[in-house]
Amino acid sequence: MRNIKITLAYDGTDYRGWAIQPGQPTIQGTVADVLEKLTRHRPTLYGAGRTDAGVHAAGQVANFKTDSQLTSGEFQHALNALLPPSIRATRAEEVGMDFHSRWNAVAKTYRYRIFRGRVVPPHLCRYVQHDPYPLDFSAMAEAARYFEGEHDFTSFAASTGSEEDDRERTTNRTIYRSEMLREGGPEVSRSTEEWVYVVRGKSFLRYMVRKMAGTLVDVGRGKLFPSDIPGIFALRDRSKSGATMVPHGLWMEEVEYANPAHSPAVKEETPAAAES
Amino acid sequence: MRNIKITLAYDGTDYRGWAIQPGQPTIQGTVADVLEKLTRHRPTLYGAGRTDAGVHAAGQVANFKTDSQLTSGEFQHALNALLPPSIRATRAEEVGMDFHSRWNAVAKTYRYRIFRGRVVPPHLCRYVQHDPYPLDFSAMAEAARYFEGEHDFTSFAASTGSEEDDRERTTNRTIYRSEMLREGGPEVSRSTEEWVYVVRGKSFLRYMVRKMAGTLVDVGRGKLFPSDIPGIFALRDRSKSGATMVPHGLWMEEVEYANPAHSPAVKEETPAAAES
Repeated sequence: MRNIKITLAYDGTDYRGWAIQPGQPTIQGTVADVLEKLTRHRPTLYGAGRTDAGVHAAGQVANFKTDSQLTSGEFQHALNALLPPSIRATRAEEVGMDFHSRWNAVAKTYRYRIFRGRVVPPHLCRYVQHDPYPLDFSAMAEAARYFEGEHDFTSFAASTGSEEDDRERTTNRTIYRSEMLREGGPEVSRSTEEWVYVVRGKSFLRYMVRKMAGTLVDVGRGKLFPSDIPGIFALRDRSKSGATMVPHGLWMEEVEYANPAHSPAVKEETPAAAES
Repeated sequence: MRNIKITLAYDGTDYRGWAIQPGQPTIQGTVADVLEKLTRHRPTLYGAGRTDAGVHAAGQVANFKTDSQLTSGEFQHALNALLPPSIRATRAEEVGMDFHSRWNAVAKTYRYRIFRGRVVPPHLCRYVQHDPYPLDFSAMAEAARYFEGEHDFTSFAASTGSEEDDRERTTNRTIYRSEMLREGGPEVSRSTEEWVYVVRGKSFLRYMVRKMAGTLVDVGRGKLFPSDIPGIFALRDRSKSGATMVPHGLWMEEVEYANPAHSPAVKEETPAAAES
């Protein structure tokens, strides 16, 4: 048996999220169907995070075990040949048998994209949330920093469930970075300006990033002050934080592993043949 | 009566091109349907260029005459409220009654996008042509310059028809700029590199930009030399130039007018209320 790690990019628009659901189009199910065709058995595909319906990924990571003779490069090419263009394997590599995409992840990074221009260009409408109304960027940036560190995120999560299959029963989570960025303007143009909330943490509760982003928008609107965030943590009441933002603005950007060979930045892209 | 100029961005994927065809989804037909709802009559919508099925636009220009009481800003907001997100009115302004989006255009700019990375990210797959194979950029850049100036473009066009409704019977066209650009890399990453063919001219024959781009790819592949371009013009034989490239890599970027008030760069975007 061999253990294959694959990095996936996907447009989540037409899928009911990562996790397999019978009779529904899902990312995990679509990739597993293709792996079954390639390997004549149906390997279990472990994903680093369970993205919700409509959420996109630039760097989701998954792994599966197989006794197939295909090399990791051949798996990548064959997956891209058989998957729809909305799901791409951007890397594939053989890893040690003890590697698990979810349990071995040391950090995950998500981005929440808020398009600030007045009109959303059609080619971006599936990938950003649109908020052209007045928002105080400085206040949002200040508030974002309050999420860093270890906190009980009960106030910033769905009522039940975690991204990680409830293996962790605690609602404490550790955030390494929580930052608001301005992109695409104003030097480009006010009409293409985009604000991005970037959050990097060990793991996340369900809806956590979207609730944090919604809370930052409430701060931007003046409904909350940055200094209100600690009090909301203390209340452990999800009705006190902002709305769960729409899924289509959320991107799973990157998953990092302690073993440098398993993290995205380290290995050069294999210069293999191309696939569309 | 008033004459309203609108600038349109659209994702051409799900449309049979600009021009109205009975029973088919088209850009012109979709916009005209909404204008009919707004004005209680069906204004003729004149477009600056007839983009083919699958071709996108960042700055198509159209105009229509109406006795509606709506201001140009109200037309923009109402269009964006009623159009699908795949078509957006990015500007609207009232212009003189003699303005015609097609006959008054002094230059149009098209971009043909060639994605050079090995794997096309899902969010770009509708908007670029994919060519990850070896191509000589310098040769393509040199060849592109041969298109500048006035030439008989018979060898670089469809067998019949022009973008401009055959008002111009000649196959001579004047190109002001024809240039290959590198974008998205290599400083970003080899895997996100994109080559863009930019062409600006007074007007174009049908399929002309896609045939020119296909000829440049033949040069990049070494099938043709840059210095072969003048000989292909002289032959007046469309079988001697490159293939007509796929429509989804083509973008209508901008239309310019002699009256500075009618050109996109001059007027500031109106700071009106937002629409998604």
